[in-house]
Amino acid sequence: MIRFDSDYLEGAYPKILKKLVETNYDQEAGYGKDEYTKSATYKIRKALNNDNVDVHFLVGGTQTNMTVISSILRSYQGVICTDTGHINVHETGAIESFGNKVITVKNEEGKINIKQIQELVDLQRNYDLPEHLVMPKLVFISLPTECGTNYTKEELKEIYDVCRKNNLYLYIDGARLGYGLVAKDTDIKLQDLTELCDIFYIGGTKCGALFGEAVVIVNDELKKDFRYYIKQRGAMLAKGRILGIQFDTLFDNNLYFKICKQAVDLALRIKEAAIEKGYKLFFNSFTNQQFIIMPNIKLKELEKEFAFFKWQKYDEENTVIRICTSWATTEENVNKLIEKL
Amino acid sequence: MIRFDSDYLEGAYPKILKKLVETNYDQEAGYGKDEYTKSATYKIRKALNNDNVDVHFLVGGTQTNMTVISSILRSYQGVICTDTGHINVHETGAIESFGNKVITVKNEEGKINIKQIQELVDLQRNYDLPEHLVMPKLVFISLPTECGTNYTKEELKEIYDVCRKNNLYLYIDGARLGYGLVAKDTDIKLQDLTELCDIFYIGGTKCGALFGEAVVIVNDELKKDFRYYIKQRGAMLAKGRILGIQFDTLFDNNLYFKICKQAVDLALRIKEAAIEKGYKLFFNSFTNQQFIIMPNIKLKELEKEFAFFKWQKYDEENTVIRICTSWATTEENVNKLIEKL
Amino acid sequence: MIRFDSDYLEGAYPKILKKLVETNYDQEAGYGKDEYTKSATYKIRKALNNDNVDVHFLVGGTQTNMTVISSILRSYQGVICTDTGHINVHETGAIESFGNKVITVKNEEGKINIKQIQELVDLQRNYDLPEHLVMPKLVFISLPTECGTNYTKEELKEIYDVCRKNNLYLYIDGARLGYGLVAKDTDIKLQDLTELCDIFYIGGTKCGALFGEAVVIVNDELKKDFRYYIKQRGAMLAKGRILGIQFDTLFDNNLYFKICKQAVDLALRIKEAAIEKGYKLFFNSFTNQQFIIMPNIKLKELEKEFAFFKWQKYDEENTVIRICTSWATTEENVNKLIEKL
Amino acid sequence: MIRFDSDYLEGAYPKILKKLVETNYDQEAGYGKDEYTKSATYKIRKALNNDNVDVHFLVGGTQTNMTVISSILRSYQGVICTDTGHINVHETGAIESFGNKVITVKNEEGKINIKQIQELVDLQRNYDLPEHLVMPKLVFISLPTECGTNYTKEELKEIYDVCRKNNLYLYIDGARLGYGLVAKDTDIKLQDLTELCDIFYIGGTKCGALFGEAVVIVNDELKKDFRYYIKQRGAMLAKGRILGIQFDTLFDNNLYFKICKQAVDLALRIKEAAIEKGYKLFFNSFTNQQFIIMPNIKLKELEKEFAFFKWQKYDEENTVIRICTSWATTEENVNKLIEKL
Repeated sequence: MIRFDSDYLEGAYPKILKKLVETNYDQEAGYGKDEYTKSATYKIRKALNNDNVDVHFLVGGTQTNMTVISSILRSYQGVICTDTGHINVHETGAIESFGNKVITVKNEEGKINIKQIQELVDLQRNYDLPEHLVMPKLVFISLPTECGTNYTKEELKEIYDVCRKNNLYLYIDGARLGYGLVAKDTDIKLQDLTELCDIFYIGGTKCGALFGEAVVIVNDELKKDFRYYIKQRGAMLAKGRILGIQFDTLFDNNLYFKICKQAVDLALRIKEAAIEKGYKLFFNSFTNQQFIIMPNIKLKELEKEFAFFKWQKYDEENTVIRICTSWATTEENVNKLIEKL
Repeated sequence: MIRFDSDYLEGAYPKILKKLVETNYDQEAGYGKDEYTKSATYKIRKALNNDNVDVHFLVGGTQTNMTVISSILRSYQGVICTDTGHINVHETGAIESFGNKVITVKNEEGKINIKQIQELVDLQRNYDLPEHLVMPKLVFISLPTECGTNYTKEELKEIYDVCRKNNLYLYIDGARLGYGLVAKDTDIKLQDLTELCDIFYIGGTKCGALFGEAVVIVNDELKKDFRYYIKQRGAMLAKGRILGIQFDTLFDNNLYFKICKQAVDLALRIKEAAIEKGYKLFFNSFTNQQFIIMPNIKLKELEKEFAFFKWQKYDEENTVIRICTSWATTEENVNKLIEKL
Repeated sequence: MIRFDSDYLEGAYPKILKKLVETNYDQEAGYGKDEYTKSATYKIRKALNNDNVDVHFLVGGTQTNMTVISSILRSYQGVICTDTGHINVHETGAIESFGNKVITVKNEEGKINIKQIQELVDLQRNYDLPEHLVMPKLVFISLPTECGTNYTKEELKEIYDVCRKNNLYLYIDGARLGYGLVAKDTDIKLQDLTELCDIFYIGGTKCGALFGEAVVIVNDELKKDFRYYIKQRGAMLAKGRILGIQFDTLFDNNLYFKICKQAVDLALRIKEAAIEKGYKLFFNSFTNQQFIIMPNIKLKELEKEFAFFKWQKYDEENTVIRICTSWATTEENVNKLIEKL
Repeated sequence: MIRFDSDYLEGAYPKILKKLVETNYDQEAGYGKDEYTKSATYKIRKALNNDNVDVHFLVGGTQTNMTVISSILRSYQGVICTDTGHINVHETGAIESFGNKVITVKNEEGKINIKQIQELVDLQRNYDLPEHLVMPKLVFISLPTECGTNYTKEELKEIYDVCRKNNLYLYIDGARLGYGLVAKDTDIKLQDLTELCDIFYIGGTKCGALFGEAVVIVNDELKKDFRYYIKQRGAMLAKGRILGIQFDTLFDNNLYFKICKQAVDLALRIKEAAIEKGYKLFFNSFTNQQFIIMPNIKLKELEKEFAFFKWQKYDEENTVIRICTSWATTEENVNKLIEKL
């Protein structure tokens, strides 16, 4: 069985394991106070061309979202996101479990627009008894979105402008940030992010690491006491070195983006082959996730050799499948899939 | 200024104040252990023709909803309601503040239907990794709805059936229960409720009391330790007698429904006059709340003498206004309004 | 049976009920926007000789404590109080239910001292990994304490100084504030409180009202968006007028303190009689609560005619009882009790 | 610098890294559904000689404690532990952040006794208004304790008996379980635990793993929907295989206990040398943590070459230091330390 059902099927990019082995006997302070974490922080700041950001390393995506969002909001404030937003649908209500409402708007291919944000803000602020409504205070977007689509730099700038105008924060979930930033449907570069949002994270788990997400806090207002939240949410790894080592490796010599670029290239080969063979796409993604509308009969046949993630039913005869590539995807396996498509 | 903007503009039905004065020097145990609370409980059980229900008296609606719902759900479970549901829009996220997600469906004149419930349940249970999704465990409806509409007995039975089939609880918010049950668009009687849901409350604040809501727990599974939740939520009145006295009065000789009936009759007179004069209704309500589409020009004129609640903008030239009647609404004032409509 | 077991055995000071009856048909805006609430606010500010404080009216003590404390603290911050503090022992963990730790120190007759506060602050701040410990951010004291004792002005000033020096807030629970301030073991006056803490409440429930507590926010930092917390905690009464009317009455012509003084005078008569008859006191209280060590044999006899609150077992042969007086306590009943002591 | 300040200074036992490297390209399902997790579960059940327990793998200790405890308790229930309990002092109030009170008793060398538990239960159950108090529902103990001490089998049996008698659950934090079970001051064996508590965890982070804790649920009542809590708490690793691989290695051929035994042997050599040289012990520990009272002058000298954890000030001239050994501690370094002691 050759699996394309997710981008976390294998371990880690081999250099990471190599570094873990090499450094295994070094004695290092715990809880993110080690030298590798310092080095990784230094490299990320350099990649961002920004020395003022705070960088913290957490273990996983849901954990990162709940830690970040609960650190920003007071109990009467809510976070705006699309109905497809990861925090709204696939995190078991972790945001609500810390007391905050997720206020949703209808997505368009995974994306939110500024009109939707402004309307929610106006609705609450203009209400006769505003304290009866949850106050929108944060906008959550994913880059790329859960549908594999991207915002352009212009779009993101507009969103951040509307946030600042209305005294909202903007948080970007970058679980697959590397795949998004190398995609050709956006002109956003990593360095741009420190100008285009208040806080974001650089995903490791789905981009070559064993696990790990690097939270980057741009806005000074959100920096204070963040380590208390990390610890309280159970997100402070005793052997923080393991996170440091991984990101130190990923941000060495641009490895993070090389890994992601290679996976995206393979994904696009599958996409093009699918189009050529007459399949329709469910979302037009240029990232490592591809969404193909597949006749159930054909799917059954393919599933003898390949594993996919069934995104949703399309109609009685077709299913939307998601195909993912990662650092570990081989050209050979992609060729096999294309051949059978 | 004659006000029709809500049903909590005045104090309490005079008999209630009279009783408070008469009993003022009686020495009674605190926290709902007094004789008046016992008597009120007895009368409510009698009105329900059911001795097995537990009855608890709380102070207000948001407090009751948050106490009841947080007592039922575990943190990974959610409550289904319409997008117009009071807990979703007008309680400052109180449900989420205790950790639970409010899962919304699109309302139809304030109402939910069984297809919507079943789909949400199926979506979660059939998901490949069900623990990534909030588990629907409770359905919240209002009777009458926030739009003044009602469920029929058949509709409510269907909803409760779909709940029980799927192992969900059903909770009815009866903030305006009296007005709903005397309306002619439903055949539900108070006694029916113990067969048609797991837990509900009989609203006092909007139906003649100074304040107070009577929670009725039908399902044995939900009875245990409910007083702990009342106390922890700050909802246990030290002088519980004040709640007892009010409901003891309201459920004496059917007063609760007489009060509501009189208010509904006056509301219907306004409704009929409005129709006669060519106004369109926004919702077709048979309760004490009437929703009328009003030209802005006319509204401005009426507002010199009358206060209404502006429900929402209808279009550039019209506004939806809500008109409420209550125990204190006089025929004289209704006549004045009708004359000027 | 003549009851002395609590100070919330009866209804309300008669003038309050009279005012409720007189104003019953007035139409007033809901949620604390009514004229009576404005007037009560005005009178409280005048009594405090301070126009800059914010005043909010809530329903009960536990509700007030949880609303105030959860509005001040972030999740990783805690509130310091004595082990006997009401929030620690008698509110079903309401503070923790909103996510905050109650950090306790051993009481001395119900009181905390500045050494205890400083030690807790130092312990956390000097810890090698401070984010592993809950950060003390608020001190909670009761005035008078749960043991009926009082702080002097000098003691309170010292506590507030140590709070400010360490960047902590000070909150005073004034459930029985009136009884405390008229007692002869303190020189604190109501006006002093705006110089001696950040936020406090003036208790109504136990001092003559049907129910109700007036929160006074002195520190500007704590004022913002407080109404959102009131609403979200289920503490915003729809008919807010009922709270306004009560405090408007209590703060008319110094009534609040007259009521409390009268009750304290009667309590002190009981205290003196008890001492004279050879009873030992458990706490030396000058407020409306008296704590007497009573032989079980004598207690049994007295209980045929009188009700007391059993505070705790003293030893095999003696029990500590609490005797409370209130606005409704009569000289006649006090004489009867003294006679039988 | 040779460091003895904690047992998480190095990476992982080399076999674990080796296994991670070997399996790196295997494609495995996420979220704990992989083959390694199955194998690890199988081996742990075998080591416990019990097929009925549920086993779940989480990332860290605070995360495990907060996930387990919040899955067991309702909001009005609390967990009893010693004042030195890890959840009480070193987890930033994570338990409270999910709404539950930590009810503390004074420790004796880190331990709790059954009298303390019974008294807390009686206090609440016999209180006149029991719902005003947090209901004790869970006892938390650490094995070994935070002070390096152990319970005997008889002591643990008594504690569990008093829990069951009073309808409380018993949870054992086994962050250093391996070190505890190989110590000579207890006769508890791993297999005994399924008879002596309702739920416990086998610590990996401090016992040879990169990270990871294995939760073992014995009591059927606590098994239901536990994966929802893991996911909601951000504790479900996408690449769950990494946890599976680690515990699969640790529970292969008794490796877990071999690692711990070796570390304990070295710790005892240090302990004996310290006693011989006339140092006093602060706690009498037979585990990998040793607590020595050290003159400040001597400490300063030693700190030129060695790192220790300063547990607390002893008096003006002495400090309590904690010395930890682990899988990575070498005899050579222990000899160097002993020589300089």
